[in-house]
Amino acid sequence: MNFKKELDTKVDIVNQYLDGFIPQAQGYAEVIYDAMRYSSFAGGKRLRPILMLSAFEAVGGVGEIVYPFACALEMIHTFSLIHDDLPAMDNDDYRRGKLTNHKVYGEGLAILAGDALLNLAFETMITATKKHRSWEAIDAMDVIAYAAGIKGMIGGQVVDLISENKIIDLDTLHYIHKNKTTAIIQAALKAGALLGKGTPEEIEALDKFGYCLGMAFQIQDDILDIISTQEELGKPIKSDEKNGKATFVSLKGLDFSKQYVKQLSQDAIHYMEDFKEKGQFLSWLSEYLMSRTY
Amino acid sequence: MNFKKELDTKVDIVNQYLDGFIPQAQGYAEVIYDAMRYSSFAGGKRLRPILMLSAFEAVGGVGEIVYPFACALEMIHTFSLIHDDLPAMDNDDYRRGKLTNHKVYGEGLAILAGDALLNLAFETMITATKKHRSWEAIDAMDVIAYAAGIKGMIGGQVVDLISENKIIDLDTLHYIHKNKTTAIIQAALKAGALLGKGTPEEIEALDKFGYCLGMAFQIQDDILDIISTQEELGKPIKSDEKNGKATFVSLKGLDFSKQYVKQLSQDAIHYMEDFKEKGQFLSWLSEYLMSRTY
Repeated sequence: MNFKKELDTKVDIVNQYLDGFIPQAQGYAEVIYDAMRYSSFAGGKRLRPILMLSAFEAVGGVGEIVYPFACALEMIHTFSLIHDDLPAMDNDDYRRGKLTNHKVYGEGLAILAGDALLNLAFETMITATKKHRSWEAIDAMDVIAYAAGIKGMIGGQVVDLISENKIIDLDTLHYIHKNKTTAIIQAALKAGALLGKGTPEEIEALDKFGYCLGMAFQIQDDILDIISTQEELGKPIKSDEKNGKATFVSLKGLDFSKQYVKQLSQDAIHYMEDFKEKGQFLSWLSEYLMSRTY
Repeated sequence: MNFKKELDTKVDIVNQYLDGFIPQAQGYAEVIYDAMRYSSFAGGKRLRPILMLSAFEAVGGVGEIVYPFACALEMIHTFSLIHDDLPAMDNDDYRRGKLTNHKVYGEGLAILAGDALLNLAFETMITATKKHRSWEAIDAMDVIAYAAGIKGMIGGQVVDLISENKIIDLDTLHYIHKNKTTAIIQAALKAGALLGKGTPEEIEALDKFGYCLGMAFQIQDDILDIISTQEELGKPIKSDEKNGKATFVSLKGLDFSKQYVKQLSQDAIHYMEDFKEKGQFLSWLSEYLMSRTY
């Protein structure tokens, strides 16, 4: 099995669905559609949708319902990036090698484009739930909504913001990583398993896989911010240092961080063992992500 | 029947539920809970929740499911006000006689508090839907999500923003009023009727009532911005003029605007006739709102 080819195929499918779920510019408010699409099609890796599709398939899920949910995750992710880049937050001018949303559309429209994407994520999931009349879909929405909110991603973003230029301890950094990045990645896996009607054991295993992968992914990000180049990363390196942000690397050192990513990655793969052949893609993806340089 | 007393009772009930649905400050991210609660309990009229409860009762709805939905509407409304007041938008320092969210918590946290309230609105509705296992709840969520998004409130906000300091025609102003304010008010009525399991005719009548009431309410707002005092209004008067915003009054004059509010109000009451006694509270509320001075 050529997993890289499978990954590329999945990315293409997600892009096609996303193109359908984010309307084309229309009417008096057309500029907001442009702003939403600008950041939604700015070279994202589609990691969260891919993870959801893969969890769905790992539990033997069938049907179309996973696609609107996968796209909703990407909308939530994109919303968070647009707001995160604003001058009142990280104040970043570039993301993935392109100007950030507010540098192109202005701050007011960037705030609204983020709001609109968060709302559209829920619209998309609700419409799909209504169409498919599936109670698993309600459970999946519940998992995603919780992970996006104050006890998940937004909560992590808050602590990240108020911790800037402060000395924070490892517990606080763990809270930020666990919530700001990991919560939605974990929700992608769990909600995918729910939509695919996995057994309680399968759902739990994918939830734990998601935790390990999400944490490993974020710490890898901290590492790349130090060791990568701007060209490879598509955004300025050492931005964490510039923004006065503690990272796993600044608190625990580069070697320990690399070792920890390796450990988390092994733990993640361990949780996929019971899935046998159906878990191979996620195991491969986990290793593939940890070897990335951007 | 003392309708004013009934209104006050409903406001108290909404406040109690809202207090339960917006968590108390906790954990590392506690400041965001404070920010969310600050604007949520800053003297709002609770118009949207009250309208939803009243529509629910008008169709003979029973049970608890309407409360989480009513509170979700207020969260969406509060989110929109927090973002609307930001320097990149209307740049308002006061709202209802109190400092706006970003003046107290800073821009970054105000953006996140708005995001968090929008997300919490969906979390609250999804949790209730899951608990009650009601398909009417999915339909109600669908109506609310659509009304809040790019083809509703956020779309209206976008056109409002890009129209500042521009000469706009009546069609554009109508688009702004119809979407920025009316869409959510209309959704409050329709979703309340759906949750209360109204007949298709009842749902349609309440939907139309919502449209007339919402438009009348917004034009009344335009009028009050001219004829009220800062003390009565709790925010600076003539803010529309200051912000370079066209209003119904600036385009059509004060007398015509007053006449139009009266007409819309009469139309609204007309739609309540078939509800007989059960529609009396909404008819009274419609007249009460049009006689307000703040």
